[in-house]
Amino acid sequence: MRAVVFNKKLQYIEDYQKPAPATGEALVKVTIAGICNTDYEITKGYMGYKGILGHEFVGIVEDVNSSDKSLIGKRVVAEISWGCDDPDCEWCAVKNYRHCPNRRTLGIWRKDGCFADYVTIPTKVLFEVPDNVTDEQAVFVEPLAAACEISEQLHIQPCQKVLVQGDGKLGLITAMTLNSQNYDVTLVGKHPEKLDLVKSLGIKTILLSNLPDTKYDVVVEATGSVSGFESAMSHTKPRGVLVLKSTVASGKELNLAPIVIDEITVLGSRCGQFRPALRILERHALDFSKLITAVYPVEKSLEAFERNKDKASVKVLIRF
Amino acid sequence: MRAVVFNKKLQYIEDYQKPAPATGEALVKVTIAGICNTDYEITKGYMGYKGILGHEFVGIVEDVNSSDKSLIGKRVVAEISWGCDDPDCEWCAVKNYRHCPNRRTLGIWRKDGCFADYVTIPTKVLFEVPDNVTDEQAVFVEPLAAACEISEQLHIQPCQKVLVQGDGKLGLITAMTLNSQNYDVTLVGKHPEKLDLVKSLGIKTILLSNLPDTKYDVVVEATGSVSGFESAMSHTKPRGVLVLKSTVASGKELNLAPIVIDEITVLGSRCGQFRPALRILERHALDFSKLITAVYPVEKSLEAFERNKDKASVKVLIRF
Repeated sequence: MRAVVFNKKLQYIEDYQKPAPATGEALVKVTIAGICNTDYEITKGYMGYKGILGHEFVGIVEDVNSSDKSLIGKRVVAEISWGCDDPDCEWCAVKNYRHCPNRRTLGIWRKDGCFADYVTIPTKVLFEVPDNVTDEQAVFVEPLAAACEISEQLHIQPCQKVLVQGDGKLGLITAMTLNSQNYDVTLVGKHPEKLDLVKSLGIKTILLSNLPDTKYDVVVEATGSVSGFESAMSHTKPRGVLVLKSTVASGKELNLAPIVIDEITVLGSRCGQFRPALRILERHALDFSKLITAVYPVEKSLEAFERNKDKASVKVLIRF
Repeated sequence: MRAVVFNKKLQYIEDYQKPAPATGEALVKVTIAGICNTDYEITKGYMGYKGILGHEFVGIVEDVNSSDKSLIGKRVVAEISWGCDDPDCEWCAVKNYRHCPNRRTLGIWRKDGCFADYVTIPTKVLFEVPDNVTDEQAVFVEPLAAACEISEQLHIQPCQKVLVQGDGKLGLITAMTLNSQNYDVTLVGKHPEKLDLVKSLGIKTILLSNLPDTKYDVVVEATGSVSGFESAMSHTKPRGVLVLKSTVASGKELNLAPIVIDEITVLGSRCGQFRPALRILERHALDFSKLITAVYPVEKSLEAFERNKDKASVKVLIRF
């Protein structure tokens, strides 16, 4: 089968071995997949991962390795982490698979990803896509769920003001999602043409160079930069919440004193549940069409990765 | 009057001008005061503060500049920050003075401190000391309140495990306080003789070099070092809480990715309310005697500051 593989370097391989589903797994024929910045980070060494890349996809179940074959033929998406299901595992007991110490994560940790004609996934993390949701919308479900996690973790009051920092994929999707949940959202970024993508939705947008000294009840940091984290601290009200959505590694001096002085809460936030995200898609509360920069056939995946790196790009998709 | 002043250098001055209480302020004759590490940090430049140092004290009210003279003669302690009381100030409206942007903080920010024969303080932040509490216990009320703030901010469940990092003043007082609140507390530090000070209270103590790879529901970081912050991240369970009690400035690379990956909450925590702290003292639930390393007469304040710097010291007091 065709596959996009990282093993020291990024490769497109025509004749990669097709996987066979283990017990409890489905064999899924991938139809479309999305490139996430995590995929790009992996090609720079993140997580030390080697194998088929990719964790955002839509596909059709071709086979299931269990007695229940009811999923065959269904169009599905999948939560990206699953745990050991050991009865003693406190995380698996509450289906919070992403924190199971023995977890696997699609295309990121101990499991081949979805940038291939076929992927195998435990049926327990598969979700049927509602009929009225296109593949091009459904492929956004994973980052959409990650954005939805903010309101899973945090009770934002209707009167509170939210600043989202970063006009990349994550920042745009997060701002759109919080806006659709009726919060008072301002998006700050460096790229006018990206900010314009969401302006018509009623999101307040502002160029970073014009950002005043205002403080917000909630700041979502989605730039992944140290300067972004510092800016987030300075724009969070005392006793406010800084939601840290992107991993930040400081290569320079970083002063965490504002966290103590202003008694800020820094809330680490990662993945989210698919069910609420699918409900948003099903009722067409969000339309991600404008965020699709380009769709490449799988044969041109390396070009797709190059396009993803372009600062002007938002979401780059791969079609199978 | 006698005063300990920082102005480029630390000085003991015999004939400093006695302050006069402004409207709403009391004139307090200081009887005993405690040296905090913040005082030491100020002598290294923290906050750019110049003036009389000190914010932990017990004293007797000698005069009040208002029509209500009822506090005269009372033994008092004082919360260290007070705000503008402007009707439009959201912080003063809820008496959360420490976040008022126009606040003053005793001996730290825009207000002379208590290392002097006399200090003036708004009566609104004064608290009478219960008769059954000695000066030597009452002088601990400010750091005790700061430790109490953890359970103000965070609901720790009885089944959860708490790690306190750091066997300095702050770490010891925090461990003692959380232990008195019936939490399951482990204190980790570098100094066996300091850990021994609280062992008899039932607090589990462990040398840093022997700390296993265990993870805790709540980790309180009270070392103030970057390595302490990194250790705190690695010892906090996924979805757990890292309470940041001491200011940390990184001079080297600091990777915040664990906050996102493990979805940790970092809770900045600073000062606390005096009323619950005074209740603890009143019912003699804690005894801080063992933490008193030495008591110096005010004339020997510079020696007291030197003694405070000694790694073997815990709390150094100044008597007037």
